[in-house]
Amino acid sequence: MTISMYQASVPVFIRMLNNLIGILEKAAADAEARKIDPAVLINSRLYPDMFPLSRQVRIAVDAAAGGAARLAGMEPPTNENNETTFPELIERIRKTIAYLNTFKPGQIDGSEKRAVTLKVRDDTLTLDGLTFLLNRVLPNFYFHITTTYGILRHNGLEIGKKDYLGKF
Amino acid sequence: MTISMYQASVPVFIRMLNNLIGILEKAAADAEARKIDPAVLINSRLYPDMFPLSRQVRIAVDAAAGGAARLAGMEPPTNENNETTFPELIERIRKTIAYLNTFKPGQIDGSEKRAVTLKVRDDTLTLDGLTFLLNRVLPNFYFHITTTYGILRHNGLEIGKKDYLGKF
Repeated sequence: MTISMYQASVPVFIRMLNNLIGILEKAAADAEARKIDPAVLINSRLYPDMFPLSRQVRIAVDAAAGGAARLAGMEPPTNENNETTFPELIERIRKTIAYLNTFKPGQIDGSEKRAVTLKVRDDTLTLDGLTFLLNRVLPNFYFHITTTYGILRHNGLEIGKKDYLGKF
Repeated sequence: MTISMYQASVPVFIRMLNNLIGILEKAAADAEARKIDPAVLINSRLYPDMFPLSRQVRIAVDAAAGGAARLAGMEPPTNENNETTFPELIERIRKTIAYLNTFKPGQIDGSEKRAVTLKVRDDTLTLDGLTFLLNRVLPNFYFHITTTYGILRHNGLEIGKKDYLGKF
């Protein structure tokens, strides 16, 4: 037995996105408890030229949805990217999970060698599906979830690695 | 064709660890240029009860080395964890890459269902190899590399996503 492109992508995304929902729910509750305007957390950044929390979440869900779509040879869904509250960000994640759940293993399995062409700034980049998933989509996906976590920890939210990794 | 446990682990770790070396080299050069004591960056944290950069790097390399070892049914190597400078941290990463290069695909392929038992605080946790790699080792590995990146960005180091993802 080996592992499949589907196993290494869709269920991994869904698990982590559910963990991310849990983290954002804790952040929303914490803002209420500490009487912090949630917008302060949602607009918070680790450095002035880094993206704020809202955009970190959007890039994470787009990495997952776009990753699955491109491996399946489809166009990724577009979004208005206008979420400004924790409930809206959580709803965006839930929609992404619902979208990911529409993929059947057969749409993604066998995509290891499928050419995936990406727009990267003014250029295009073509990668095989395996490189695309392992060296681009997954590191990018984890980057933006971890940075969301880091922004919230930096603002004093009491969460731990268990919230990020989820239950076993 | 499907993908193998080796493909999804060892080469992924090595690629990201080389990217991490590049980031730490830039941090060392930047500290010198800005006349910052490198120890300030190495001891920097995103929040008082989070780990400093040095420990983020150590956990990242241990996740990779321990992940590969446990999938192969071996004990992970131990270390003194006494690095206090950028050159020492980079050397620790290089040693880890050399260790990872000793693994042959045959030692890790087929480990999808191999039981992996971990010590988690006062308890033990047994996972199959697939869950261990996809839902524990990889998210943990990326978490600590991204947090290293976040600590350095937070301290004004001019690096970008390309440094983290590497070249394609």
